[in-house]
Amino acid sequence: MRVLGVDPGLTRCGVGVVEGVAGRPLTMLGVGVVRTPADAELGQRLVAVEQGIEQWLDEHRPEFVAVERVFSQHNVQTVMGTAQASAVAMLCAARRGIPVALHTPSEVKAAVTGSGRADKAQVGAMVTRLLRLAAPPKPADAADALALAICHIWRAPAQNRLQQAVALQAARTPITPKGRTA
Amino acid sequence: MRVLGVDPGLTRCGVGVVEGVAGRPLTMLGVGVVRTPADAELGQRLVAVEQGIEQWLDEHRPEFVAVERVFSQHNVQTVMGTAQASAVAMLCAARRGIPVALHTPSEVKAAVTGSGRADKAQVGAMVTRLLRLAAPPKPADAADALALAICHIWRAPAQNRLQQAVALQAARTPITPKGRTA
Repeated sequence: MRVLGVDPGLTRCGVGVVEGVAGRPLTMLGVGVVRTPADAELGQRLVAVEQGIEQWLDEHRPEFVAVERVFSQHNVQTVMGTAQASAVAMLCAARRGIPVALHTPSEVKAAVTGSGRADKAQVGAMVTRLLRLAAPPKPADAADALALAICHIWRAPAQNRLQQAVALQAARTPITPKGRTA
Repeated sequence: MRVLGVDPGLTRCGVGVVEGVAGRPLTMLGVGVVRTPADAELGQRLVAVEQGIEQWLDEHRPEFVAVERVFSQHNVQTVMGTAQASAVAMLCAARRGIPVALHTPSEVKAAVTGSGRADKAQVGAMVTRLLRLAAPPKPADAADALALAICHIWRAPAQNRLQQAVALQAARTPITPKGRTA
């Protein structure tokens, strides 16, 4: 199973591709960050995020995309950017019929460290160990994206297969937006 | 000047096209709502919003897209959906080199009613009058989309022209997402 993990953000969008199955050693196929300049127009930044995600999908052909579920946090402006970047990532995957899974930060931390309240360093250390890397991926957004992918691989395989079938079916027969024109 | 107003939402995304210039009577070219089923997968709903917005852009070829600026409100779940739908609308416009303007609900209300705290009925009544319609557009999301378009037309024309030039230039030379692969 090949999963692209996405830690959404407008300034830094972490991306990481992991391959493997639950119970076996995992392999990292790629890790990186899609960056967009903070001084660009919001629309242009979203276009750049789209292009970046499309490149990762083209290059790695993941079977699943795992995106961090966005919650309202203290900083409203950051949350909006995160929600908008995550929308673009989900859109890119859904257009291709790739199932999208959302995992909360606590779920991801619990999956890779055993504790839903683990800190960044702990997550980085476990990602490094689980993927047998020489050093923790930097920045933290890149490590978080890999942790998301690992979290997804370790979910119930049966559930994943079902979701994959549903997403493929949905991409073949898209829901039609209902509009009306005066 | 032809403007597509978008009142973003996942369940109901209001859209309305208005043509005119400040100081002259305005014309409504179309109004509607892009709807997506609440029980569909989030990724599929975003794909449906994208298809709906693309249809409106294809049909009406607006020179500007005006989108309601999303604020964090009481209902976190609604705000996330609104932010995600607005991201899709901005993405569709920016990809085509159409400038995107964001207006707050207060700015829109103040523009069409004279008060930033006007209620839905008041906005609907003024939209009906300004566009010389037989009845207020329903649902409220559709009326709000028209109000957004009107608000945008009434902004300083010089500012709009500048923004248009910048957006076109940006679409011709898109900012490149910077990624790295391990």
